[in-house]
Amino acid sequence: MTEPMELSRSECETLLRRGVVGRVAIATPAGPYIVPINYSVSVGHVVVCTTPYSLLGSQGRDRLVAFEVDHFEHPRMRGWSVVVRGRTEAVEDHEELRALMRVLPRPWASGHRSLYLRIPLDEVTGRRLGAGWDLEENLPVHRAL
Amino acid sequence: MTEPMELSRSECETLLRRGVVGRVAIATPAGPYIVPINYSVSVGHVVVCTTPYSLLGSQGRDRLVAFEVDHFEHPRMRGWSVVVRGRTEAVEDHEELRALMRVLPRPWASGHRSLYLRIPLDEVTGRRLGAGWDLEENLPVHRAL
Repeated sequence: MTEPMELSRSECETLLRRGVVGRVAIATPAGPYIVPINYSVSVGHVVVCTTPYSLLGSQGRDRLVAFEVDHFEHPRMRGWSVVVRGRTEAVEDHEELRALMRVLPRPWASGHRSLYLRIPLDEVTGRRLGAGWDLEENLPVHRAL
Repeated sequence: MTEPMELSRSECETLLRRGVVGRVAIATPAGPYIVPINYSVSVGHVVVCTTPYSLLGSQGRDRLVAFEVDHFEHPRMRGWSVVVRGRTEAVEDHEELRALMRVLPRPWASGHRSLYLRIPLDEVTGRRLGAGWDLEENLPVHRAL
């Protein structure tokens, strides 16, 4: 078994920028939910795109959420995770929306998404299991930074 | 882009039983958190093991939580996720604890964990992106069922 270790803020941000899919946790009166979603990091925020009628779109606006990305290497029983916590804001400025549409990854799921939510990178924490291995080496995707 | 499709209850349970690491979302007065954790499925419950002093151990007892497992195939932009939602219970019966210790996976992270929490498989939902591919084919781990 390996020792859990905290990641630095800059390690967390690098790993966040590499990924294209993560998970949002939202609290609702009926308890918490977890929703996998495509995302991008842009100008100090995690940005996701959903429909106004989804669980996230209807209950996740202007709410405290947690957003998580991780990667596990099963054969070696190790991995890392990064969590961003903050209050979501709907992006409403037209200029900003146009800029976001250029940087966001193409969603994997079909459907029309018109609601852009951003989570500020205020509280960013991460952990890794074990020292002495390259966290970025075996990532399934390498988005250009 | 591919169509999201609901998984059947039995597909969800099969995928749940195959995995060894998932994520728990818990709601706290300070907002939601997401915690990656090793798990097992035993007698109609997801079972995880933590310390009484962790975030999950201190704020996740007798609470509504969401537990998620997923798998994404980045090159093909597809994947699946399964979510279990329910109220956690601490396992306190000695016989049951002894039985659980035999089936739970060895935790990847070091540290002494004495608190076993279980989440009943009451609300189990899952989604996949796209039809016509074997959800279990490219899993990183194949726990024997």
